[in-house]
Amino acid sequence: IVWRKDRLAVLDQRLLPRRVVYVSCRSARDVARATADMVLRGAPLIGCAAAYGMALAARRGRLRDVLRAEPVLRRARPTAVNLMHALDFMLDVARSGPERTLSARMNEAAERYRRDDVEANARMAELGAALLKPGSRVITHCNAGALATAGIGTAVGMIRAGFLSGKIAHVYPCETRPYLQGSRLTLWELMKAGIPATLITDNMAAHLMKTERIDAVIVGSDRIAANADVCNKIGTYGLAILARHHGIPFYVVAPSSTVDLRTPSGDRIPIEERSTREVVEVFGTPIAPKGARARHFAFDVTPHALVTAIVTERGVVSPADAAALKKIISTR
Amino acid sequence: IVWRKDRLAVLDQRLLPRRVVYVSCRSARDVARATADMVLRGAPLIGCAAAYGMALAARRGRLRDVLRAEPVLRRARPTAVNLMHALDFMLDVARSGPERTLSARMNEAAERYRRDDVEANARMAELGAALLKPGSRVITHCNAGALATAGIGTAVGMIRAGFLSGKIAHVYPCETRPYLQGSRLTLWELMKAGIPATLITDNMAAHLMKTERIDAVIVGSDRIAANADVCNKIGTYGLAILARHHGIPFYVVAPSSTVDLRTPSGDRIPIEERSTREVVEVFGTPIAPKGARARHFAFDVTPHALVTAIVTERGVVSPADAAALKKIISTR
Repeated sequence: IVWRKDRLAVLDQRLLPRRVVYVSCRSARDVARATADMVLRGAPLIGCAAAYGMALAARRGRLRDVLRAEPVLRRARPTAVNLMHALDFMLDVARSGPERTLSARMNEAAERYRRDDVEANARMAELGAALLKPGSRVITHCNAGALATAGIGTAVGMIRAGFLSGKIAHVYPCETRPYLQGSRLTLWELMKAGIPATLITDNMAAHLMKTERIDAVIVGSDRIAANADVCNKIGTYGLAILARHHGIPFYVVAPSSTVDLRTPSGDRIPIEERSTREVVEVFGTPIAPKGARARHFAFDVTPHALVTAIVTERGVVSPADAAALKKIISTR
Repeated sequence: IVWRKDRLAVLDQRLLPRRVVYVSCRSARDVARATADMVLRGAPLIGCAAAYGMALAARRGRLRDVLRAEPVLRRARPTAVNLMHALDFMLDVARSGPERTLSARMNEAAERYRRDDVEANARMAELGAALLKPGSRVITHCNAGALATAGIGTAVGMIRAGFLSGKIAHVYPCETRPYLQGSRLTLWELMKAGIPATLITDNMAAHLMKTERIDAVIVGSDRIAANADVCNKIGTYGLAILARHHGIPFYVVAPSSTVDLRTPSGDRIPIEERSTREVVEVFGTPIAPKGARARHFAFDVTPHALVTAIVTERGVVSPADAAALKKIISTR
């Protein structure tokens, strides 16, 4: 995303890597639509975009425009808690002063929100990379990279830092059906960064874990419950079970804004079900018979018992449990 | 496949369900090419096609044509043992009489091989369905249906029989990347048979097992080792781990010709690696950046300890171990 005072230019991730197109958002409603349609995606980036959406709503200096925009943005994606976190933060800012300074305060707050995400990424990358042994070969899922955040990414940030310090030798991104974020986005980021990477289909992970050396699975998260259960892109839960079966550590990298202490456990996280069209078509080409029924769970929940460690910008939570998580999140 | 005396017409499964096109094979070499290129697929069907390929090679009544054709066919796909089984059977027939009766004997033998597959399918369907509880909701992977055999299929045959007797209420085929046999072929067969079916991407299976009732996983096989390790389409091994984690029975349905007592264990089964192009493109549309590296394991191996039962036309092998398997295969 690129902020241009009166509008937010959003890179259309649905067209990557085939085409690089920006969508211009001039209102909070535009940002909400781009979020719902997955023009942009990635929990931290959804939060940043929502912050700018609130700034756009404040342009005319009227608090009531901001209060009206807030629920529209909140409904855009139900699962990612960073969205709620960003809106709460921006609402507080909106109410903290007079209307004549509203627009300036909201612009500044959105910029701060974005800067904090960039800094959190850098800190998580450093903390996460320290957990790896030199020359690791890792699997990642979906895209928790620069395209999913304002900075270098969460899981991919840790991979970038790990590569620079010799901790990571090779990355296997799962293609991540149905949206193919792994093959379209993560592989693209890794190739651009010169990090050795080899694509696999989601269903090859188990075979790879059994027949070749895999040292870690590293993923991001869309919401972490108070008990440390982790919600992330569909397929993550299965990967966690496979990692456990093969004795491979399973790391989750996410900013503290992803932790939702108000959600007691993972089974209380709403799992977004999206259009089945996104399952039965690939780039508009049908891959199933006409009239086919399909399910499209966008996310799943990994119980905390399957998570080796959660890496946040405030520290590493390991073992991943309620007490350890609360301690980290309540600090400072 | 349709046998027309002087040629074998092979339904091009790569184009299904979008187009129905038959490829005409007039020689053993044509059959080998169609097999390698996956015009036809499915271990039992590969066996049947190879039998007809040998019959085509015998048309001129010369044993040496048959002996030359045999290794060409054998190399077409390395993993499916039914291919080797069919070729051994046809070689025996070729050598069992004079050249003047060669063509007639080979034609008859190929027909018999096909008829045996049809009958084995029916018997497995009956034995397999008896294992299920009424109203079961099952997951299947790849296509082990009428398109993969000469009859009603192995795993899908069991599902068809189960549906007719009220044992099966709903089927979730995994789409089965990268070839999408589940979404293109299995779902097509199920919809034609009027069996309630809902497509899922491969990485949704774990979430479905956790959040909705799934009563069994039912798959076919390309080769079963002497110790009852099961080789099948990539993704099967992962599904077996997920089924075990959720306490769901895991059934393998395959004719006895799939059992290879000469392969002591699964780790000795050659795993075919195919072109990465089949991973980075879907129907010719690129889904990854230019120059992307990928792996394409066509199969994986599920250790026998994760298999609840193997259903063959000679009986059900449960527990799935070397002794039980040998007993069934050595009978009659």
